[in-house]
Amino acid sequence: MYTYVHGGDIYTQKNTADGKTMIDFSANINPLGLPVGVKKALKNAVRKCVNYPDPFCRELAQATAEFLQINKDYLFFGNGAADVLFRLALSLKPKRALLLAPTFADYEKALRSVNCGINYYKLQSKYDFTVQKDILHRITARTDMVVICNPNNPTGQLMDRSLLEAVLARCREVNAYLLVDECFMDFVDAEKAYSMRHLLADNPNLIILKAFTKTFAIPGVRLGYCMNADATLHKLLHESGQDWSVSVLAQEAGCAALQEREYLNESFMLIKEERHYLINQLKALGADVYGSHANYIFFYMEKPAQLKELLYEQGYMIRSCANYHNLGDGYYRIAVKTRVLNRGLIKAIKEARKNALITGTY
Amino acid sequence: MYTYVHGGDIYTQKNTADGKTMIDFSANINPLGLPVGVKKALKNAVRKCVNYPDPFCRELAQATAEFLQINKDYLFFGNGAADVLFRLALSLKPKRALLLAPTFADYEKALRSVNCGINYYKLQSKYDFTVQKDILHRITARTDMVVICNPNNPTGQLMDRSLLEAVLARCREVNAYLLVDECFMDFVDAEKAYSMRHLLADNPNLIILKAFTKTFAIPGVRLGYCMNADATLHKLLHESGQDWSVSVLAQEAGCAALQEREYLNESFMLIKEERHYLINQLKALGADVYGSHANYIFFYMEKPAQLKELLYEQGYMIRSCANYHNLGDGYYRIAVKTRVLNRGLIKAIKEARKNALITGTY
Repeated sequence: MYTYVHGGDIYTQKNTADGKTMIDFSANINPLGLPVGVKKALKNAVRKCVNYPDPFCRELAQATAEFLQINKDYLFFGNGAADVLFRLALSLKPKRALLLAPTFADYEKALRSVNCGINYYKLQSKYDFTVQKDILHRITARTDMVVICNPNNPTGQLMDRSLLEAVLARCREVNAYLLVDECFMDFVDAEKAYSMRHLLADNPNLIILKAFTKTFAIPGVRLGYCMNADATLHKLLHESGQDWSVSVLAQEAGCAALQEREYLNESFMLIKEERHYLINQLKALGADVYGSHANYIFFYMEKPAQLKELLYEQGYMIRSCANYHNLGDGYYRIAVKTRVLNRGLIKAIKEARKNALITGTY
Repeated sequence: MYTYVHGGDIYTQKNTADGKTMIDFSANINPLGLPVGVKKALKNAVRKCVNYPDPFCRELAQATAEFLQINKDYLFFGNGAADVLFRLALSLKPKRALLLAPTFADYEKALRSVNCGINYYKLQSKYDFTVQKDILHRITARTDMVVICNPNNPTGQLMDRSLLEAVLARCREVNAYLLVDECFMDFVDAEKAYSMRHLLADNPNLIILKAFTKTFAIPGVRLGYCMNADATLHKLLHESGQDWSVSVLAQEAGCAALQEREYLNESFMLIKEERHYLINQLKALGADVYGSHANYIFFYMEKPAQLKELLYEQGYMIRSCANYHNLGDGYYRIAVKTRVLNRGLIKAIKEARKNALITGTY
């Protein structure tokens, strides 16, 4: 039996006992919902679905290149960032990779699909789960790939810029790829945000992963991409999967999304404010809040135990992080949503605590 | 540089020199276009794209199981049949496979992505490109997988039922998987059509591939699946790729498509009649027409040479089959479309012949 380990599974139970729709804090999606222009583009694209999609995503590549100010030949699109991840694994077939622990589970899943051995760089709570300089010693001649999620998922912790660049240099030395997942970078405060894409041209071993999913609230559409300067890798990527992985709908949605500057600004400001609100509220409830520079909050709350289940009963889904490597009970991740919903969640946590105190399970 | 080898590439040049839209006979899509119910379902599904898709496609599996009258646990869905193909390759990692030649190019592409060695069973024009009994001798202890496309693409040729069953038995003997691609079976005349799905329960080594793409004219949406009775293989399939490969849009489109009984009947009758028309017209023009039991016609026409290019100039895209294994110049595949379009294509072929005669290139 296969087990689904991620957040966002609203299908297993959609409603609470009394028929109310569950509120999903377990998936990190932009709380503003689908941009109007994207909705419109998707509806308009329906009639075009009678044709195969463009295997080279030419219009989308052009639009994305202009948006990011990079060379369009650096872009490779897939059926969500997770699809690109599996393609990268199959294209490169690395033998040994270094992953953060904890981090997004699909790096390991993708690498294991090609029998890659995994080493873990264990992030420590005493360093607020940030990567330390000792990671450089863990990158050796045997390392074929290093994966850094920045900001990291589930911690929302950022990596120090100069250390990240040192990791890249070290990877080049030992002939390893550095895969940097920047899927959540769009939500990080401008003064802290740091994309490595300006380093692509000079570093053919650098691969940056990115998604439309989280930024534009379209996880149901599936659209992600990677950036890399090496034409040989691009040929391999094309060879390691079908030609039509990006649907007509996803290509059109992507082009429309890149026009949504207003939506992006608004999202960014909302997330910043609500992140602040949630962090303060959680701290006031005695939680240890770590990192949390993106559109989700990572915290440790020892009591009440089984917080996820207690909130579920009240109609809220949150992500327990107990199934991540190097984490355990008491660690949780919640998405940053709108004030009404955030306030509701905080109220539900208080309620859960109160009930636990009364029943003596606190 | 990566080369796209399939039909349906309307993006490289969408228009003729005088601005008319190209008419695409190179992709085998139902000429009736998107069913109304599917169009509606896609538009309604747009608002649901704010959530991740169901990783287990539960509603779609239920609906498909009822439609096909099979166990829903046999179904595994993907981002088009081609996506399922690459997942199968990655899940099973076969070391040696036997493929027909010619056949759909992506079996080989998917198998090569996991370094599988390929043997070819060469179909011969003297047998009208049908599989003969000698295929049984080609399935040995070293064979891990046999792939049969039935009806075959590009030939549209069907395989003899008892021989197909003998191949399945032989595969079991040598512990090999038999992958049968039935993507085009829905267009085959009822008295000749033969799905192996009633054999799934007793043959855990049998995998059947199927798509919504061709039958319901939705190649731009991406939806396909495989059927297999072995729970262990299903677990492997889930482990060998992302959890969200089937978009919310594709899942909803699939559910709606299965309601379209009227559309299916109408398509079936149209294809039957127009296939007959095209075969007769091509034969009258001196073409050797082979197989062609599906919604496409496979033929050999020695002259004029460069027929594809000559038709392109007139606004028609057809599939040259020169790049298939075991075929060469003069072999072509065309989709079966509506009478107006089919008549237009035949007229264009006549025109091309006439011009070739005049210029002395015939």
